[in-house]
Amino acid sequence: MSFETSVGTSDADSITVMGRDLARDLMGKASLSELAFLVVQGRMPTPEEARLFDAVLVSLADHGLTPTVLAARLTHTGAPESLQGAVAAGLLGAGSVFLGVVEDTVLFLDEAGEDVEGAVARELEAGRRIPGLGHPIHKVEDPRTPRIYEIAEETGLTGSYLARLRELAAAHARQTGRELPINGAGVAGAALADLGFPGPLLRGFALLARTAGLLGHLAEEMQSPIGMRLYREVDERAKYVPPTGE
Amino acid sequence: MSFETSVGTSDADSITVMGRDLARDLMGKASLSELAFLVVQGRMPTPEEARLFDAVLVSLADHGLTPTVLAARLTHTGAPESLQGAVAAGLLGAGSVFLGVVEDTVLFLDEAGEDVEGAVARELEAGRRIPGLGHPIHKVEDPRTPRIYEIAEETGLTGSYLARLRELAAAHARQTGRELPINGAGVAGAALADLGFPGPLLRGFALLARTAGLLGHLAEEMQSPIGMRLYREVDERAKYVPPTGE
Amino acid sequence: MSFETSVGTSDADSITVMGRDLARDLMGKASLSELAFLVVQGRMPTPEEARLFDAVLVSLADHGLTPTVLAARLTHTGAPESLQGAVAAGLLGAGSVFLGVVEDTVLFLDEAGEDVEGAVARELEAGRRIPGLGHPIHKVEDPRTPRIYEIAEETGLTGSYLARLRELAAAHARQTGRELPINGAGVAGAALADLGFPGPLLRGFALLARTAGLLGHLAEEMQSPIGMRLYREVDERAKYVPPTGE
Amino acid sequence: MSFETSVGTSDADSITVMGRDLARDLMGKASLSELAFLVVQGRMPTPEEARLFDAVLVSLADHGLTPTVLAARLTHTGAPESLQGAVAAGLLGAGSVFLGVVEDTVLFLDEAGEDVEGAVARELEAGRRIPGLGHPIHKVEDPRTPRIYEIAEETGLTGSYLARLRELAAAHARQTGRELPINGAGVAGAALADLGFPGPLLRGFALLARTAGLLGHLAEEMQSPIGMRLYREVDERAKYVPPTGE
Repeated sequence: MSFETSVGTSDADSITVMGRDLARDLMGKASLSELAFLVVQGRMPTPEEARLFDAVLVSLADHGLTPTVLAARLTHTGAPESLQGAVAAGLLGAGSVFLGVVEDTVLFLDEAGEDVEGAVARELEAGRRIPGLGHPIHKVEDPRTPRIYEIAEETGLTGSYLARLRELAAAHARQTGRELPINGAGVAGAALADLGFPGPLLRGFALLARTAGLLGHLAEEMQSPIGMRLYREVDERAKYVPPTGE
Repeated sequence: MSFETSVGTSDADSITVMGRDLARDLMGKASLSELAFLVVQGRMPTPEEARLFDAVLVSLADHGLTPTVLAARLTHTGAPESLQGAVAAGLLGAGSVFLGVVEDTVLFLDEAGEDVEGAVARELEAGRRIPGLGHPIHKVEDPRTPRIYEIAEETGLTGSYLARLRELAAAHARQTGRELPINGAGVAGAALADLGFPGPLLRGFALLARTAGLLGHLAEEMQSPIGMRLYREVDERAKYVPPTGE
Repeated sequence: MSFETSVGTSDADSITVMGRDLARDLMGKASLSELAFLVVQGRMPTPEEARLFDAVLVSLADHGLTPTVLAARLTHTGAPESLQGAVAAGLLGAGSVFLGVVEDTVLFLDEAGEDVEGAVARELEAGRRIPGLGHPIHKVEDPRTPRIYEIAEETGLTGSYLARLRELAAAHARQTGRELPINGAGVAGAALADLGFPGPLLRGFALLARTAGLLGHLAEEMQSPIGMRLYREVDERAKYVPPTGE
Repeated sequence: MSFETSVGTSDADSITVMGRDLARDLMGKASLSELAFLVVQGRMPTPEEARLFDAVLVSLADHGLTPTVLAARLTHTGAPESLQGAVAAGLLGAGSVFLGVVEDTVLFLDEAGEDVEGAVARELEAGRRIPGLGHPIHKVEDPRTPRIYEIAEETGLTGSYLARLRELAAAHARQTGRELPINGAGVAGAALADLGFPGPLLRGFALLARTAGLLGHLAEEMQSPIGMRLYREVDERAKYVPPTGE
């Protein structure tokens, strides 16, 4: 019994990825982002799609010294010989707290359908937060948001998700009297959904983008380490409090 | 005391990555690969460098149902709710056996310096294998190799590593009377070194490229799972042999 | 500002773990399982608790060539120099599919409270499966289940969770006319809950137990490798099906 | 073609681990540590071996807020829904820097053979550090060391590695005029080697022990989180230095 796959195969003379000859049709012609689009969607993106897709990936690649970056750098401190371990550690924290918004925004819009106004009303009544709105630092405007909308306009790729995300922000402002900016994670999710990516994989593109960002942090860690110093300081400032379990 | 970083920062109105304004200067202008180049080298690649760099990344992204892909798909079988765990598991096998060649080829050329002929002679005399040569499937020619050399020629980026890797293959053929093709991992390492990337980070770009490939496999695993079937078959064919430890 | 912790600390002359002198009070006196109990509950287990706890851990340690074991062995194939990577890959698949039952059983009993009969009725009416019952291989009786109940009896530690899990199985049999055995994951969850462990950490003890099992598989993989052979066979039996995305 | 394994198997009525009936012969009779010994060595430890083995595992389980513990806690900050990811991240930093000593000490003694004095002399002449000696905090005596020697004496298990490790410390003091204590990692490696464990697996027992310690830290992180606060403080104290790459 065989194991079927459409991703890739090879024989003595050629390598095939998604039905294309890797050396002849992809190398030198496709960027890594276009390849990532291809392996998930089964077709090459148009130049416009590739531009929007790259803009989203670039927007997700780095956010400074985040918890996941610190985890990667601290892992490198203990196991510098295993770069794959440090990268893996840096990806493992990309879970519900930080990446949830990317997916939750799309899920919320999926459930809202055309009635965004009603969905916002129900959510507010239930006392829940609306995903995709608000940011702890970018309180007035998240600089990534207008840029994604601009590129989507320029490329003619403003789809139903991006459009309804704007409705969502407007509905929230109307109903609460308080304007919250659309955040970068929310707009990234909406743009990826408009590009045709399925919900369960949205997180995957954030992982791809962050891997690029992690390489920058690990290159810096090799030159100007933070991990050991961070540990030493935490250790010095650690205050031991005997447990009260008994 | 501060924690210095050059990778990224943000304030209320802007996000900065490697000294650039993310929204204005990078989103819509740089691809993810260009960003990866930027965060490691501190400068944007030229269009020619970006083309060669993308060709290398694309060449490394997928090799079919490899051990690391199987590890990722089997991890998804048990924890489908944690895509980051499956990707991380798929990266953790990217160690000395499969990615060693990328780095070992560059290391060998670093140690050889200009005397590639002599270095090959010493290595053969010591009974060791020459890194970057030979491939279990592509016995005559690895299709990635001439393509990388072609793109390096077209972009004017054939540097010392790519040149000496050819000398290395020629020296090996002369001294052993047996022609071995330069393999895809070896040529990728040499091209990355010619692009200016430092040795300890070369593996990182293979990780980035493979993350893209893994997304394709995990998208496929969600639609046409292999993991559970593979496990069940192994389980059925497992033959229990009591240990002889006592 | 300090970072408070109760787990451990050290100074020039001593090491403290959970308020105990590591060298004097724990080494030579506590087993690793007792230490694991201590660091989570803040107190040492009684000998009876330790016996039941060890029985649960031992019951969870190995299930043969599972997907997670295969992921660990395939990771070792590619990165034999990084044992921590292979162990980590083997833990990452310990998610909702395989370990969910341990937690779901306890959660179900938490929500059922004293009305297990009613909770089973509601669940069956909603067409949902009852967690903790049934096993694909052990169709009549899971051998771990009577043993855990026996040890809980012997140690006087049959608590509310173990008792209600039996009610649950009986209620299910009464209401459906079909007897399903309590499975090993369900009984492990109930026993851990009766031992006082909180729900969100139950999965952690399965991870601890499996780490022990993984060491056995990785020791075997070093002597009698399966990973490379498994990959080669999958590769040979892979059937490439060009994607239909376009 | 079958996949042979000696670790475990099961059928409708029974589960077998290392040739033993899990429910009848192991559950309620063996501790998790004894099981870990069994799956690697193929035989049950004697009570004396189990005591020394547990003492070593307990000695390795926790060292306070180490880089790997911080990586695990920061991973939990971002992905609290995936305990396996936080544990895996906490293991991935267990590499050459922190665990190298456990293995390096045994490797050094393997290479030294009976001539420890000469091996120390050669190493000092080459300007290299002797593994297993010295500790940044425990400058006079590592409290774990005399305790392991004491338990080894009591159990009659002082073997060649523990004996030669003492010679090594004495040789170093004689040749340098400077007494360095045998550190906890070195003595753990020697004791595990005397217990019959092979070199490439020594790191695995540190991973097992640390998994227990990590559960304590993650339980604490759920109650009294450090991760988010640590990140916020690093973020506030981050000083952005534009790169000088161009």
